[in-house]
Amino acid sequence: MKQGTSLWNVSRVECGEVTELQDEVAVEFPLTLVVNGKEFATMVCSPLDLEVLVIGFLASEGIIRRKEDISSLSIDEDTGFAYIELTKEVPVVSTMEKRWIGSCCGKSRAFYFQSDAKTARTIMNHFQLEPEVCLQLMKQFHAEAQVFKKTGGVHQASIATREGLEVTFADIGRHNALDKLLGHMILHQLRNKEHTVLFSGRISSEVLLKISKMGIGFLLSKSAPTDLALKLAEDLNITAIGFVRDDRMNVYTHPERLKTDVAPSFAEMNKGGIDVD
Amino acid sequence: MKQGTSLWNVSRVECGEVTELQDEVAVEFPLTLVVNGKEFATMVCSPLDLEVLVIGFLASEGIIRRKEDISSLSIDEDTGFAYIELTKEVPVVSTMEKRWIGSCCGKSRAFYFQSDAKTARTIMNHFQLEPEVCLQLMKQFHAEAQVFKKTGGVHQASIATREGLEVTFADIGRHNALDKLLGHMILHQLRNKEHTVLFSGRISSEVLLKISKMGIGFLLSKSAPTDLALKLAEDLNITAIGFVRDDRMNVYTHPERLKTDVAPSFAEMNKGGIDVD
Repeated sequence: MKQGTSLWNVSRVECGEVTELQDEVAVEFPLTLVVNGKEFATMVCSPLDLEVLVIGFLASEGIIRRKEDISSLSIDEDTGFAYIELTKEVPVVSTMEKRWIGSCCGKSRAFYFQSDAKTARTIMNHFQLEPEVCLQLMKQFHAEAQVFKKTGGVHQASIATREGLEVTFADIGRHNALDKLLGHMILHQLRNKEHTVLFSGRISSEVLLKISKMGIGFLLSKSAPTDLALKLAEDLNITAIGFVRDDRMNVYTHPERLKTDVAPSFAEMNKGGIDVD
Repeated sequence: MKQGTSLWNVSRVECGEVTELQDEVAVEFPLTLVVNGKEFATMVCSPLDLEVLVIGFLASEGIIRRKEDISSLSIDEDTGFAYIELTKEVPVVSTMEKRWIGSCCGKSRAFYFQSDAKTARTIMNHFQLEPEVCLQLMKQFHAEAQVFKKTGGVHQASIATREGLEVTFADIGRHNALDKLLGHMILHQLRNKEHTVLFSGRISSEVLLKISKMGIGFLLSKSAPTDLALKLAEDLNITAIGFVRDDRMNVYTHPERLKTDVAPSFAEMNKGGIDVD
């Protein structure tokens, strides 16, 4: 079994002094997916939890929708190849997807690919969390960062209920960490609507779309959002909360899911798309 | 002209208190490249310095090598389309590049794509910098982060000489920030060998390959490296220095370019490939 880190000889220069030491660095592992006998893609990743990564990646790319679409999956860690047999043909997913400059049809113009506009799911649940619970979950999330604590620069994603974190994945790639989460949900057929995602990275449009594919309506991030991600979050009915740190957080969209005594009142102000709630 | 940030209404929850305020968030802008009349790719980026982004992206993808390969370039910021006419046909760049499990032929097995093994350039210069200069450049680099200081989560890349920073680009995408730098170098035909790159993000294999395409042998990063990037840096004769913060830094590869009284001595210990120096 591969490790997520390896040792490297380093000269640390500090205040003019040079110290030689061994430092842990994150392993970057090329993994090539062979689907139905044909080379499909090569990604680089942390060589941990590869099975859920492969499943989540294929779901993200629109190749599978549920675990029954896969008849066999084997991973050769020595050569870095994953062999996947589907129960169907590989769907034709154009690599040159047409950009979607749509007329306004209820979904945000923030969608820039046709396929995203088709596959993104509007979240229909009303699951609420108290601010104190959000902060507590983020504390647990930080405590999980054991493997990579020393290496730095590694991303992490968890799903949690109000009782605590259920599962956490780490990867050098921010999208990979989320794909592992999606793969885990598909593999274990998790459809609990009372989940929240915790994520170490920035909330970009692609991150937001992955959360929507998980069917989850609550996102807590350590980091900042982009405007496009927030427009999508408005439309898809996802509560996006950023900069969750220490005793504060910024609620950007759908604050009605945050259970406070003083309800935030700006909900209508940022609205760009239809109100699905 | 588009702005790099926009305002969003936010509820800040802090110690149980809710404050409504306007916060700056980074703009995420979809830009579609139409090359020789045909849709080539859609990327998301910060809508700043789009011309150098387009040039750098096309160079990174192997579509152009120098500015003379482009006969015209126009960008429509309102619709988010860039129209590029080349002086030649669009080279056929396979989207399913064959993975390269090479027999050892002098270049590192860290190359995982044939095209990388072909296009990566081994850096032949011996340009040296003192640790004090490196730390001073990183201080300037931080001081540059004006536009995006408040939004968070934005990456930044500069080229510098020992006299100071020459140019700095920012983008929500780490690769875009480096592509803008590459585009700037191609546009201004910069071939000064006495350059260093400063970068805010992690040193991954893809980042390292971009530095090599710029022909630069010195990389200073705020962040951590991966093992694959370090193997490539060894092979391509690039000095990779990470965690450059305050008064310290970690020298991972080719320490002979760091001008210290006490020369670091581990150079031979990490070697995987041939010694080109």
